[in-house]
Amino acid sequence: SLHRIKASGLKLQLCTNETQATRENFVRKLRAMGFDISVAEVTAPAPAACRLLRERGLRPHLLVHDDLLPEFAEIDKTNPNCVVLGDAAENFTYANLNEAFRLLIGMEKPVLISLGKGRYYKETDGLKLDVGAYMKALEYACDVQAEVVGKPAKRFFESALAELGVPPEQAIMIGDDIVSDVGGAQQCGMRALQVRTGKFRPSDENHPKVKPDAYVNNLAEAVDIILQQL
Amino acid sequence: SLHRIKASGLKLQLCTNETQATRENFVRKLRAMGFDISVAEVTAPAPAACRLLRERGLRPHLLVHDDLLPEFAEIDKTNPNCVVLGDAAENFTYANLNEAFRLLIGMEKPVLISLGKGRYYKETDGLKLDVGAYMKALEYACDVQAEVVGKPAKRFFESALAELGVPPEQAIMIGDDIVSDVGGAQQCGMRALQVRTGKFRPSDENHPKVKPDAYVNNLAEAVDIILQQL
Repeated sequence: SLHRIKASGLKLQLCTNETQATRENFVRKLRAMGFDISVAEVTAPAPAACRLLRERGLRPHLLVHDDLLPEFAEIDKTNPNCVVLGDAAENFTYANLNEAFRLLIGMEKPVLISLGKGRYYKETDGLKLDVGAYMKALEYACDVQAEVVGKPAKRFFESALAELGVPPEQAIMIGDDIVSDVGGAQQCGMRALQVRTGKFRPSDENHPKVKPDAYVNNLAEAVDIILQQL
Repeated sequence: SLHRIKASGLKLQLCTNETQATRENFVRKLRAMGFDISVAEVTAPAPAACRLLRERGLRPHLLVHDDLLPEFAEIDKTNPNCVVLGDAAENFTYANLNEAFRLLIGMEKPVLISLGKGRYYKETDGLKLDVGAYMKALEYACDVQAEVVGKPAKRFFESALAELGVPPEQAIMIGDDIVSDVGGAQQCGMRALQVRTGKFRPSDENHPKVKPDAYVNNLAEAVDIILQQL
Protein backbone atom coordinates (compact mmCIF):
# COMPACT_ATOMS: atom_id res chain seq x y z
CA SER A 1 0.00 0.00 0.00
CA LEU A 2 2.80 2.43 0.85
CA HIS A 3 4.44 1.62 -2.47
CA ARG A 4 1.23 2.31 -4.40
CA ILE A 5 0.84 5.69 -2.70
CA LYS A 6 4.37 6.73 -3.54
CA ALA A 7 4.13 5.38 -7.10
CA SER A 8 1.03 7.53 -7.66
CA GLY A 9 3.04 10.67 -6.88
CA LEU A 10 1.23 11.38 -3.61
CA LYS A 11 3.32 12.53 -0.68
CA LEU A 12 3.39 10.39 2.43
CA GLN A 13 4.20 11.11 6.06
CA LEU A 14 4.04 8.48 8.78
CA CYS A 15 2.68 9.91 12.06
CA THR A 16 3.63 7.71 14.98
CA ASN A 17 3.38 8.07 18.72
CA GLU A 18 6.26 5.62 19.10
CA THR A 19 8.42 6.80 21.98
CA GLN A 20 10.31 3.62 22.80
CA ALA A 21 12.85 4.08 20.02
CA THR A 22 14.55 6.77 17.97
CA ARG A 23 13.15 7.44 14.50
CA GLU A 24 16.29 5.82 13.11
CA ASN A 25 15.59 2.56 14.90
CA PHE A 26 11.89 2.74 14.17
CA VAL A 27 12.60 3.13 10.44
CA ARG A 28 15.20 0.36 10.54
CA LYS A 29 12.57 -2.01 11.96
CA LEU A 30 10.03 -0.99 9.33
CA ARG A 31 12.54 -1.40 6.51
CA ALA A 32 13.48 -4.83 7.82
CA MET A 33 9.78 -5.69 7.55
CA GLY A 34 9.85 -4.58 3.92
CA PHE A 35 8.40 -1.06 4.21
CA ASP A 36 10.06 1.54 2.01
CA ILE A 37 10.23 4.43 4.50
CA SER A 38 12.91 7.01 5.29
CA VAL A 39 13.53 8.91 8.54
CA ALA A 40 12.38 12.15 6.90
CA GLU A 41 9.00 10.55 6.25
CA VAL A 42 8.37 9.96 9.96
CA THR A 43 6.80 12.47 12.35
CA ALA A 44 7.29 11.37 15.96
CA PRO A 45 6.79 12.93 19.40
CA ALA A 46 10.42 13.14 20.51
CA PRO A 47 11.60 15.47 17.70
CA ALA A 48 8.45 17.53 18.23
CA ALA A 49 9.34 17.81 21.92
CA CYS A 50 12.91 18.85 21.05
CA ARG A 51 11.59 21.67 18.88
CA LEU A 52 9.34 22.85 21.71
CA LEU A 53 12.18 22.65 24.28
CA ARG A 54 14.45 24.74 22.04
CA GLU A 55 11.77 27.32 21.29
CA ARG A 56 11.08 27.88 24.95
CA GLY A 57 14.58 27.48 26.38
CA LEU A 58 13.52 24.48 28.46
CA ARG A 59 16.03 22.03 29.93
CA PRO A 60 14.33 18.69 30.47
CA HIS A 61 14.61 15.99 33.05
CA LEU A 62 13.85 12.91 30.92
CA LEU A 63 11.67 10.05 32.09
CA VAL A 64 11.72 8.09 28.84
CA HIS A 65 12.77 4.75 27.41
CA ASP A 66 16.55 4.26 27.26
CA ASP A 67 16.32 3.66 23.52
CA LEU A 68 14.80 7.12 23.01
CA LEU A 69 17.63 9.02 24.71
CA PRO A 70 19.64 9.65 21.50
CA GLU A 71 16.79 11.88 20.20
CA PHE A 72 17.62 14.27 23.06
CA ALA A 73 21.41 14.08 22.69
CA GLU A 74 21.75 17.70 21.56
CA ILE A 75 19.45 19.13 24.22
CA ASP A 76 20.82 20.85 27.34
CA LYS A 77 19.66 18.78 30.29
CA THR A 78 21.58 20.51 33.08
CA ASN A 79 19.63 22.02 35.97
CA PRO A 80 16.23 20.90 34.59
CA ASN A 81 13.27 23.29 34.47
CA CYS A 82 10.74 20.81 33.04
CA VAL A 83 10.02 17.09 32.90
CA VAL A 84 9.59 15.21 29.61
CA LEU A 85 7.61 12.00 29.95
CA GLY A 86 7.60 9.22 27.36
CA ASP A 87 6.60 5.60 27.41
CA ALA A 88 9.47 4.73 29.71
CA ALA A 89 8.33 1.10 30.18
CA GLU A 90 10.76 -0.59 32.61
CA ASN A 91 12.04 2.87 33.55
CA PHE A 92 8.65 3.57 35.18
CA THR A 93 10.01 2.56 38.57
CA TYR A 94 8.79 3.87 41.91
CA ALA A 95 12.12 5.68 42.38
CA ASN A 96 12.07 7.29 38.91
CA LEU A 97 8.47 8.44 39.28
CA ASN A 98 9.22 9.97 42.67
CA GLU A 99 12.26 11.70 41.21
CA ALA A 100 10.27 13.23 38.33
CA PHE A 101 7.54 14.23 40.78
CA ARG A 102 9.97 15.91 43.19
CA LEU A 103 11.50 17.95 40.39
CA LEU A 104 8.06 19.09 39.21
CA ILE A 105 6.67 19.94 42.63
CA GLY A 106 9.85 21.87 43.38
CA MET A 107 9.34 24.18 40.38
CA GLU A 108 7.65 27.53 40.84
CA LYS A 109 5.45 26.66 37.87
CA PRO A 110 5.77 22.96 37.04
CA VAL A 111 6.14 22.20 33.30
CA LEU A 112 5.28 18.64 32.31
CA ILE A 113 5.65 17.69 28.64
CA SER A 114 4.21 14.34 27.66
CA LEU A 115 5.14 12.56 24.44
CA GLY A 116 1.66 11.07 24.25
CA LYS A 117 -1.46 10.38 26.24
CA GLY A 118 -2.21 6.80 25.29
CA ARG A 119 -3.98 4.75 27.93
CA TYR A 120 -2.47 1.36 27.17
CA TYR A 121 -1.09 -0.80 24.40
CA LYS A 122 -0.66 -4.45 23.64
CA GLU A 123 2.61 -6.33 23.54
CA THR A 124 3.26 -9.99 22.94
CA ASP A 125 3.22 -10.60 26.71
CA GLY A 126 0.01 -8.66 27.32
CA LEU A 127 -1.43 -5.19 27.85
CA LYS A 128 0.78 -2.48 29.30
CA LEU A 129 -0.02 0.90 30.83
CA ASP A 130 0.94 3.64 28.37
CA VAL A 131 2.49 7.04 29.01
CA GLY A 132 -0.93 8.70 29.48
CA ALA A 133 -1.54 6.81 32.72
CA TYR A 134 1.73 8.03 34.23
CA MET A 135 1.04 11.51 32.90
CA LYS A 136 -2.26 11.52 34.83
CA ALA A 137 -0.46 10.39 37.99
CA LEU A 138 2.00 13.29 37.80
CA GLU A 139 -0.68 15.78 36.75
CA TYR A 140 -2.74 14.89 39.80
CA ALA A 141 0.17 14.87 42.24
CA CYS A 142 1.47 18.25 41.04
CA ASP A 143 -1.90 19.82 40.21
CA VAL A 144 -0.63 20.65 36.73
CA GLN A 145 -1.81 20.00 33.17
CA ALA A 146 0.68 18.26 30.90
CA GLU A 147 1.44 19.60 27.43
CA VAL A 148 1.04 16.67 25.05
CA VAL A 149 3.24 16.78 21.98
CA GLY A 150 2.26 13.48 20.30
CA LYS A 151 -1.03 12.63 18.59
CA PRO A 152 -3.77 13.93 18.94
CA ALA A 153 -2.07 17.31 19.59
CA LYS A 154 -2.86 19.79 16.83
CA ARG A 155 0.76 20.94 16.79
CA PHE A 156 1.84 17.42 15.96
CA PHE A 157 -0.30 17.18 12.83
CA GLU A 158 0.71 20.69 11.82
CA SER A 159 4.32 19.66 11.98
CA ALA A 160 3.60 16.60 9.78
CA LEU A 161 1.81 18.87 7.27
CA ALA A 162 4.78 21.23 7.31
CA GLU A 163 7.05 18.30 6.43
CA LEU A 164 4.73 17.42 3.54
CA GLY A 165 4.40 21.03 2.47
CA VAL A 166 0.64 20.73 1.92
CA PRO A 167 -2.35 22.48 3.52
CA PRO A 168 -4.64 20.35 5.73
CA GLU A 169 -7.49 20.27 3.20
CA GLN A 170 -5.20 18.50 0.74
CA ALA A 171 -4.16 15.82 3.23
CA ILE A 172 -5.88 12.65 4.39
CA MET A 173 -5.05 10.85 7.62
CA ILE A 174 -5.45 7.08 7.73
CA GLY A 175 -5.38 5.57 11.20
CA ASP A 176 -6.76 2.92 13.53
CA ASP A 177 -7.17 5.09 16.64
CA ILE A 178 -10.44 6.98 16.67
CA VAL A 179 -9.22 9.73 19.03
CA SER A 180 -5.48 10.05 18.43
CA ASP A 181 -5.50 9.55 14.67
CA VAL A 182 -8.95 10.48 13.38
CA GLY A 183 -9.95 13.09 15.96
CA GLY A 184 -6.53 14.74 16.02
CA ALA A 185 -6.27 15.06 12.23
CA GLN A 186 -9.83 16.39 11.89
CA GLN A 187 -9.16 19.03 14.58
CA CYS A 188 -6.34 20.15 12.36
CA GLY A 189 -8.61 20.52 9.31
CA MET A 190 -7.71 17.25 7.61
CA ARG A 191 -10.05 14.51 6.49
CA ALA A 192 -9.51 11.18 8.22
CA LEU A 193 -10.28 7.54 7.48
CA GLN A 194 -10.46 4.92 10.19
CA VAL A 195 -9.25 1.43 9.29
CA ARG A 196 -11.10 -1.47 10.85
CA THR A 197 -7.83 -3.13 11.88
CA GLY A 198 -5.37 -2.80 14.76
CA LYS A 199 -6.78 -0.75 17.61
CA PHE A 200 -10.18 -0.39 15.93
CA ARG A 201 -13.09 -1.60 18.03
CA PRO A 202 -16.71 -1.87 16.81
CA SER A 203 -17.76 0.61 19.54
CA ASP A 204 -15.62 3.24 17.78
CA GLU A 205 -18.41 3.54 15.21
CA ASN A 206 -20.61 5.03 17.95
CA HIS A 207 -17.93 7.28 19.40
CA PRO A 208 -19.61 10.23 21.17
CA LYS A 209 -17.21 12.86 19.85
CA VAL A 210 -15.35 11.69 16.77
CA LYS A 211 -16.78 10.63 13.42
CA PRO A 212 -14.33 9.62 10.67
CA ASP A 213 -14.98 10.87 7.13
CA ALA A 214 -15.19 7.18 6.20
CA TYR A 215 -14.43 3.70 7.46
CA VAL A 216 -12.31 1.28 5.47
CA ASN A 217 -11.59 -2.36 6.14
CA ASN A 218 -7.83 -1.96 5.89
CA LEU A 219 -5.01 0.18 4.56
CA ALA A 220 -5.18 -1.38 1.07
CA GLU A 221 -8.85 -0.38 0.75
CA ALA A 222 -8.02 3.15 1.97
CA VAL A 223 -5.40 3.46 -0.75
CA ASP A 224 -7.82 2.08 -3.39
CA ILE A 225 -10.37 4.75 -2.53
CA ILE A 226 -7.85 7.59 -2.46
CA LEU A 227 -6.27 6.60 -5.78
CA GLN A 228 -9.68 6.22 -7.44
CA GLN A 229 -10.52 9.79 -6.55
CA LEU A 230 -7.31 11.35 -7.90
CA SER B 1 -3.66 16.50 74.60
CA LEU B 2 -5.09 13.03 74.03
CA HIS B 3 -4.87 12.39 77.76
CA ARG B 4 -6.74 15.60 78.55
CA ILE B 5 -9.54 14.67 76.14
CA LYS B 6 -9.96 11.23 77.67
CA ALA B 7 -9.71 12.56 81.24
CA SER B 8 -12.56 14.97 80.47
CA GLY B 9 -14.86 12.06 79.62
CA LEU B 10 -15.03 12.90 75.92
CA LYS B 11 -14.83 10.03 73.46
CA LEU B 12 -11.97 9.94 71.00
CA GLN B 13 -11.48 8.26 67.65
CA LEU B 14 -8.32 8.58 65.61
CA CYS B 15 -9.07 8.81 61.88
CA THR B 16 -6.01 7.94 59.84
CA ASN B 17 -5.39 7.33 56.15
CA GLU B 18 -2.36 5.23 57.08
CA THR B 19 -2.21 2.28 54.69
CA GLN B 20 1.39 1.23 55.09
CA ALA B 21 0.78 -0.70 58.29
CA THR B 22 -1.92 -2.63 60.12
CA ARG B 23 -3.80 -0.80 62.85
CA GLU B 24 -1.96 -3.03 65.35
CA ASN B 25 1.43 -1.82 64.16
CA PHE B 26 0.24 1.75 63.83
CA VAL B 27 -0.99 1.73 67.43
CA ARG B 28 2.21 0.03 68.62
CA LYS B 29 4.24 2.89 67.09
CA LEU B 30 2.02 5.52 68.67
CA ARG B 31 2.19 3.85 72.07
CA ALA B 32 5.99 3.66 71.81
CA MET B 33 5.88 7.42 71.27
CA GLY B 34 3.87 7.78 74.47
CA PHE B 35 0.34 8.10 73.06
CA ASP B 36 -2.32 6.26 75.02
CA ILE B 37 -4.32 4.78 72.12
CA SER B 38 -5.93 1.39 71.55
CA VAL B 39 -6.70 -0.39 68.26
CA ALA B 40 -10.44 0.12 68.81
CA GLU B 41 -9.85 3.88 68.87
CA VAL B 42 -8.43 3.88 65.34
CA THR B 43 -10.49 4.17 62.14
CA ALA B 44 -8.37 3.29 59.11
CA PRO B 45 -9.02 2.62 55.41
CA ALA B 46 -8.11 -1.07 55.28
CA PRO B 47 -10.79 -2.25 57.75
CA ALA B 48 -13.27 0.03 55.99
CA ALA B 49 -12.35 -1.64 52.70
CA CYS B 50 -12.78 -5.09 54.24
CA ARG B 51 -16.30 -4.19 55.35
CA LEU B 52 -17.13 -2.99 51.85
CA LEU B 53 -15.65 -6.11 50.24
CA ARG B 54 -17.70 -8.37 52.52
CA GLU B 55 -20.91 -6.42 51.97
CA ARG B 56 -20.61 -6.66 48.20
CA GLY B 57 -19.08 -10.13 47.89
CA LEU B 58 -15.95 -8.73 46.28
CA ARG B 59 -12.71 -10.70 46.07
CA PRO B 60 -9.79 -8.29 45.79
CA HIS B 61 -6.51 -8.33 44.01
CA LEU B 62 -4.37 -6.33 46.44
CA LEU B 63 -1.84 -3.73 45.35
CA VAL B 64 -0.86 -2.58 48.83
CA HIS B 65 2.12 -2.34 51.15
CA ASP B 66 3.37 -5.72 52.40
CA ASP B 67 2.89 -4.56 55.99
CA LEU B 68 -0.83 -4.00 55.35
CA LEU B 69 -1.54 -7.53 54.10
CA PRO B 70 -2.55 -8.95 57.54
CA GLU B 71 -5.61 -6.62 57.53
CA PHE B 72 -6.91 -8.64 54.57
CA ALA B 73 -6.00 -12.06 55.96
CA GLU B 74 -9.63 -13.16 56.37
CA ILE B 75 -10.75 -11.95 52.95
CA ASP B 76 -11.25 -14.35 50.03
CA LYS B 77 -8.76 -13.29 47.37
CA THR B 78 -9.22 -16.13 44.90
CA ASN B 79 -10.29 -15.32 41.34
CA PRO B 80 -10.36 -11.54 41.97
CA ASN B 81 -13.27 -9.39 40.81
CA CYS B 82 -11.89 -6.05 41.98
CA VAL B 83 -8.61 -4.30 42.70
CA VAL B 84 -7.80 -2.70 46.06
CA LEU B 85 -5.14 -0.02 45.89
CA GLY B 86 -3.23 1.29 48.89
CA ASP B 87 -0.02 3.21 49.32
CA ALA B 88 2.04 0.29 48.11
CA ALA B 89 5.32 2.27 48.10
CA GLU B 90 8.08 -0.04 46.82
CA ASN B 91 5.36 -2.39 45.56
CA PHE B 92 4.41 0.26 42.98
CA THR B 93 6.56 -1.42 40.35
CA TYR B 94 5.95 -1.32 36.61
CA ALA B 95 5.11 -5.04 36.70
CA ASN B 96 2.67 -4.73 39.62
CA LEU B 97 0.89 -1.74 38.08
CA ASN B 98 0.52 -3.56 34.76
CA GLU B 99 -0.82 -6.61 36.60
CA ALA B 100 -3.47 -4.57 38.45
CA PHE B 101 -4.34 -2.79 35.22
CA ARG B 102 -4.76 -6.04 33.25
CA LEU B 103 -7.08 -7.46 35.88
CA LEU B 104 -9.21 -4.32 35.83
CA ILE B 105 -9.40 -3.95 32.07
CA GLY B 106 -10.33 -7.62 31.82
CA MET B 107 -13.41 -7.15 34.03
CA GLU B 108 -16.79 -6.58 32.44
CA LYS B 109 -17.26 -3.67 34.82
CA PRO B 110 -13.93 -2.78 36.46
CA VAL B 111 -14.13 -2.14 40.22
CA LEU B 112 -11.24 -0.16 41.67
CA ILE B 113 -11.26 0.51 45.40
CA SER B 114 -8.68 2.99 46.65
CA LEU B 115 -7.68 3.27 50.30
CA GLY B 116 -7.10 6.99 49.85
CA LYS B 117 -6.59 9.70 47.30
CA GLY B 118 -3.64 11.59 48.74
CA ARG B 119 -1.40 13.28 46.19
CA TYR B 120 1.91 12.95 48.01
CA TYR B 121 3.48 12.84 51.43
CA LYS B 122 6.81 13.60 53.01
CA GLU B 123 9.25 11.08 54.35
CA THR B 124 12.69 11.61 55.86
CA ASP B 125 14.26 11.06 52.43
CA GLY B 126 11.90 13.39 50.59
CA LEU B 127 8.46 13.67 48.98
CA LYS B 128 6.77 10.53 47.67
CA LEU B 129 3.85 10.03 45.31
CA ASP B 130 0.84 8.88 47.32
CA VAL B 131 -1.85 6.35 46.42
CA GLY B 132 -4.03 9.00 44.73
CA ALA B 133 -1.52 9.43 41.91
CA TYR B 134 -1.55 5.72 41.11
CA MET B 135 -5.32 5.68 41.46
CA LYS B 136 -5.53 8.37 38.76
CA ALA B 137 -3.24 6.35 36.49
CA LEU B 138 -5.47 3.27 36.74
CA GLU B 139 -8.68 5.32 36.49
CA TYR B 140 -7.48 6.87 33.25
CA ALA B 141 -6.18 3.64 31.74
CA CYS B 142 -9.39 1.73 32.53
CA ASP B 143 -11.82 4.63 32.08
CA VAL B 144 -13.25 3.94 35.52
CA GLN B 145 -13.85 5.95 38.68
CA ALA B 146 -12.29 4.55 41.84
CA GLU B 147 -14.30 4.18 45.02
CA VAL B 148 -12.28 5.86 47.77
CA VAL B 149 -12.72 4.38 51.23
CA GLY B 150 -10.30 6.55 53.24
CA LYS B 151 -10.67 10.23 54.18
CA PRO B 152 -12.39 12.35 52.84
CA ALA B 153 -15.02 9.71 51.97
CA LYS B 154 -18.27 10.30 53.83
CA ARG B 155 -18.56 6.60 54.60
CA PHE B 156 -15.24 6.72 56.39
CA PHE B 157 -16.33 9.42 58.80
CA GLU B 158 -19.68 7.71 59.29
CA SER B 159 -17.89 4.58 60.32
CA ALA B 160 -15.76 6.55 62.83
CA LEU B 161 -18.97 8.09 64.25
CA ALA B 162 -20.53 4.65 64.50
CA GLU B 163 -17.51 3.50 66.54
CA LEU B 164 -17.98 6.50 68.84
CA GLY B 165 -21.73 6.04 69.00
CA VAL B 166 -22.41 9.76 68.56
CA PRO B 167 -24.27 11.75 65.90
CA PRO B 168 -22.18 14.06 63.67
CA GLU B 169 -23.41 17.26 65.30
CA GLN B 170 -21.92 16.10 68.61
CA ALA B 171 -18.51 15.36 67.11
CA ILE B 172 -15.60 17.62 66.22
CA MET B 173 -12.86 16.71 63.79
CA ILE B 174 -9.38 18.10 64.39
CA GLY B 175 -7.01 17.76 61.46
CA ASP B 176 -4.21 19.33 59.46
CA ASP B 177 -5.48 18.47 55.97
CA ILE B 178 -7.96 21.01 54.66
CA VAL B 179 -9.62 18.64 52.18
CA SER B 180 -9.27 15.15 53.67
CA ASP B 181 -9.83 16.06 57.31
CA VAL B 182 -11.80 19.30 57.43
CA GLY B 183 -13.77 19.00 54.18
CA GLY B 184 -14.54 15.31 54.66
CA ALA B 185 -15.80 15.75 58.24
CA GLN B 186 -17.94 18.77 57.34
CA GLN B 187 -19.53 16.88 54.43
CA CYS B 188 -20.57 14.37 57.03
CA GLY B 189 -22.24 17.01 59.23
CA MET B 190 -19.44 17.41 61.75
CA ARG B 191 -17.69 20.60 62.75
CA ALA B 192 -13.99 20.67 61.97
CA LEU B 193 -10.95 22.56 63.25
CA GLN B 194 -7.79 22.92 61.22
CA VAL B 195 -4.51 22.93 63.11
CA ARG B 196 -1.77 25.17 61.76
CA THR B 197 0.78 22.34 62.02
CA GLY B 198 1.80 19.36 59.87
CA LYS B 199 0.33 19.55 56.39
CA PHE B 200 -1.20 22.98 57.00
CA ARG B 201 -0.13 25.64 54.51
CA PRO B 202 -1.00 29.35 54.76
CA SER B 203 -2.79 29.09 51.39
CA ASP B 204 -5.29 26.70 53.05
CA GLU B 205 -6.87 29.76 54.66
CA ASN B 206 -8.00 30.85 51.19
CA HIS B 207 -9.14 27.43 50.05
CA PRO B 208 -11.76 27.83 47.32
CA LYS B 209 -14.07 25.10 48.63
CA VAL B 210 -13.42 24.31 52.28
CA LYS B 211 -13.65 26.61 55.27
CA PRO B 212 -12.92 25.15 58.72
CA ASP B 213 -15.19 26.12 61.61
CA ALA B 214 -12.04 27.51 63.22
CA TYR B 215 -8.26 27.52 62.97
CA VAL B 216 -6.09 26.61 65.93
CA ASN B 217 -2.33 26.82 66.25
CA ASN B 218 -1.94 23.23 67.39
CA LEU B 219 -3.70 20.25 68.93
CA ALA B 220 -3.23 21.54 72.50
CA GLU B 221 -5.05 24.76 71.62
CA ALA B 222 -7.85 22.78 69.95
CA VAL B 223 -8.30 20.77 73.14
CA ASP B 224 -8.24 23.94 75.26
CA ILE B 225 -11.09 25.43 73.23
CA ILE B 226 -13.17 22.26 73.23
CA LEU B 227 -12.79 21.70 76.97
CA GLN B 228 -13.63 25.35 77.71
CA GLN B 229 -16.93 24.95 75.90
CA LEU B 230 -18.04 21.79 77.69
